[in-house]
Formats: sequence, structure tokens, C-alpha cells
Amino acid sequence: MLVIGERINGMFKNVREAIVAGDRSVIQDLAKRQLASGATMLDVNVGPATDEKEKAMVWLVESIREVTKAPLSIDSPNAAVVRAGLKLAGPGSMINSSTGKADDLAKFLPLAQEMDASLIGLTIDESGVPSTTDGRVEIAMRILAAAMEHDIPPDRLYIDPIALPVNVAQDQPVRVFEALSQFAMLSDPAPHTVVGLSNASQRCQERELISRTYLVMTMAHGLDSAIMDVFDTELMNAMITAELLMNKAIYCDAYLDAYRKSQRPA
Amino acid sequence: MLVIGERINGMFKNVREAIVAGDRSVIQDLAKRQLASGATMLDVNVGPATDEKEKAMVWLVESIREVTKAPLSIDSPNAAVVRAGLKLAGPGSMINSSTGKADDLAKFLPLAQEMDASLIGLTIDESGVPSTTDGRVEIAMRILAAAMEHDIPPDRLYIDPIALPVNVAQDQPVRVFEALSQFAMLSDPAPHTVVGLSNASQRCQERELISRTYLVMTMAHGLDSAIMDVFDTELMNAMITAELLMNKAIYCDAYLDAYRKSQRPA
Repeated sequence: MLVIGERINGMFKNVREAIVAGDRSVIQDLAKRQLASGATMLDVNVGPATDEKEKAMVWLVESIREVTKAPLSIDSPNAAVVRAGLKLAGPGSMINSSTGKADDLAKFLPLAQEMDASLIGLTIDESGVPSTTDGRVEIAMRILAAAMEHDIPPDRLYIDPIALPVNVAQDQPVRVFEALSQFAMLSDPAPHTVVGLSNASQRCQERELISRTYLVMTMAHGLDSAIMDVFDTELMNAMITAELLMNKAIYCDAYLDAYRKSQRPA
Repeated sequence: MLVIGERINGMFKNVREAIVAGDRSVIQDLAKRQLASGATMLDVNVGPATDEKEKAMVWLVESIREVTKAPLSIDSPNAAVVRAGLKLAGPGSMINSSTGKADDLAKFLPLAQEMDASLIGLTIDESGVPSTTDGRVEIAMRILAAAMEHDIPPDRLYIDPIALPVNVAQDQPVRVFEALSQFAMLSDPAPHTVVGLSNASQRCQERELISRTYLVMTMAHGLDSAIMDVFDTELMNAMITAELLMNKAIYCDAYLDAYRKSQRPA
């Protein structure tokens, strides 16, 4: 499982304030603690902290690079911001994200090719998020085909079927589960799959319970990456147990500890 | 979700002792507390408590019927014991269980037909539990076809793909998940599906975590019944949340409470 820590995002108050104040220690602490909690990649998103997105992204990546070489997911809809982040982030980076819109693919696929980066492809097109399984699969196919034209192989692609909040779109989780199963059959090797997990429980009362249940259900359908709250220990335990049941980690009585030790950054 | 409470089983020490001592209050207390905790059916199994299985089954069902009319799952490999239990249990009962062995089907299908009972069909045949998905599906088909010959429609059948303990058969959960998805396509309407959940975590250290993760993963593949420990609140919360995400219960912020209230016996 590629576990992408969600916390370095200007949507969170302490990150927003750190960006505005230029306080690197907040960002560096979040980077280190997320890695210690099981993140294998860190998402980096300026969010609404400032209008100077490119400058803030450079500052965030520089701050993180002072404390870790962990791979980063450079998260912005703006290609110039992504390019600036990728340059500093170095090898193993990810672009988060392109939709399946022709304009977005034309911006982000050449960038992924040039920078040797992975790419998250959202199943969103000019008509928005499809409400059906088939609509999601069709956009995924389009992204996959376009990626191949740019010499980006399926194993550098992470297709995101879009986890909508369950309180407003309750018919959608089942479509997401079905879509995940179908993505696995689009190519050989299959593209990876990813969800922005916290979105599924937005404004719900039982957020943590919904998040971990949603994660386990998507993993049962082959999900192999998530952008998530690695500080939620119950969520991480559920993820590790789902990996075990999917036969992706070897059973021992102390499998939770064993998994955590195996993932710890050097 | 048909939630079958597992606790009235002679494998448990207090049940075994109650059977030997003829102490109805222990059984009646377990019946009432399981129903209050969310069970919609109660499993009844003499287990290793005594060699007088039929007499003990009659005593168990009589004891339970003094306090509730809830449907019962009469659990024994012995058709005479099952018949004795069913007679007293009355309408809405379940036979737990027949394998797909020709001998078992010849014993239990006529009994289900005669007593108008539902039937759990285990995907076990003369060669044991298949290690493959296809092997499970093949036995399920055989059970389904045999049931139809006895006028037992698919919606009275509960196919059990056999949840083996993950610590000794770690490649099997994925096969179970796949089999569940395929059972749904065997007939229209599809047969129900069921697992004996506690078996999946036998002798594991993190039993409760494994159980609830396993349940959620099987529900993501359409599982609609389980024999389980309804006293495990976290397990019940996971089950209720999985029902929500499968769009089988309507979202509200207090969905856990709402579900529990809706399931409470009159």
C-alpha cells in the first residue's frame, strides 16, 4: 500500500499559518511525524494559504527536503506550481493530479514524462464526476491511453475514482468499489488506484469510523494507495489488517508491529 | 444484513455448563442480550456439551422460546437433531447447515422443504474445502441446483464460502471475496451469502480487529449475513457502517443509533 500523508495542506489551519509566517518547523514536524506514523509519501498542497502558490510550494518542498528525502506528491491544479514543486522534490515524485479533461491531460502528461513522475488521474471530465461505474471506467481508459502516448506506463498511473461524501452521495460508494474492480482489468500490468479518503466522510459525524470502513471496502476491491490521515491509529490498523487479508503482508501474531517496522523510513 | 448471534453454542463454557446443569436462565439471558445487541436471528448449537444432542437441542430451543419468538438457526450436522430443533423453533427458522456433499443434500434439502426452513449451504464437498474461487462457485452451483429440485428458492439459501483462519490459510480470504462476488451472479434473485465470522480469526492475536476487517471486506463483495459476536460493539459499528456504504441503510448523522433502533425486536 502506498500511504500518502494528507497533512501538509494549506486547508489545515496550522499549515496555513506556518506558510504565512514562514515557520518551517511546523511543516518539518508534520513531515517527520507522518513518516513515523506510516506514511510512505507526503502530499504537499498550498491550499488557500496564499495567492503566491508557486512561491509557497517551493518553500514547502524546501522545508520538507531539509528533513527527509521521502517521495512527495505535489498537489495543485496549476501546472506551473506542480513543475516548481517537482523540480525541488526530485526522483520518485508524484503529480497530484490531472483530471481526464483534454486540457488537463495536455498540461500534466508531458510534465510527468519530462520529470519522470507518477501521476494521479481523477475520473473527472468536462461533464464533472460521472455518477456511474461505467462513466468512471471510460475516463480511466482515456487517461490510460493518453498516458501511454506519453510513454508513461500503467504502473506510474494512479487512477482515482473520486470518493464523494457519503452524506450527500450515498449511492456512490458502491460505484467506486465496482470501478476499482474494473480498473484492474484495463491493462496488464494494471494502473494503480488511489482515493482521497477524507473526502468520503466530509461533514459526517462518525468521520473516523466511516473513513476506515470505506478504506477497507475499497482495499477489498484492489485499492493500493490512499491519501489519508496517518495520525489516525485505528485507520492505520484497519489498513494494515486489510493488507494482511489481501495476502499482501505475511501473517504473524504481531503483524501490526511487523508492518510498522517494515515501513519505517531509514 | 441478517445478523445471526453465535453465542448459544456448547463450545462456550457457560453454555456447556448451563446445558449440563439444566440452567435455563443462562441461555435465556444470552438470547435476550444478543437480540438487544443487534442479532436478528440466534444460532443454537449443542456443541460438545453432551452426547444426548437431540435432547439438549430440544431443551435449548424450549428455553429460548420461553423468552423470545426471534427466528433461530438450528446448528447441527445431525439431521435428527436439526429436525427436533426446527419442530419447536417454528416458522422463519434456518438449518445450519448442509455441505454440498450428496449425502448431506439428500438429508437436509427435504427437511428444509418439509419444514419451510432456510438453509445454509457450505461450499464443502467430498474433497473438503476447495482452495480456489472456482471450486467454491462450482459447489455453490450444485447446492443451488439441488435446492431448486426441492422447490427451495434462492432467497431461502445462504451460501457460505467458508472463512478459514487467516493465520493458517492466508491466501484464502481473497478467494472468499471473489467467490462472494460470483455467487451473486449464479441466479436471479441471487442466493444469500453467509460466513461464520469468528472462524477467520481463530487463534489470532488481534482477533477483533481481524474479524471486523474481514466482515467489512466480505460485505464490500455483497455478503448479506454473518454468524457473529454481536456483543462486540466495534464489530457491530463496522457492520452498520458497511451497510451504509453499500447503500442499504439511509444516511443520517446518528445512523448508528438509527440502525440499532430499527433492528430492535418488538
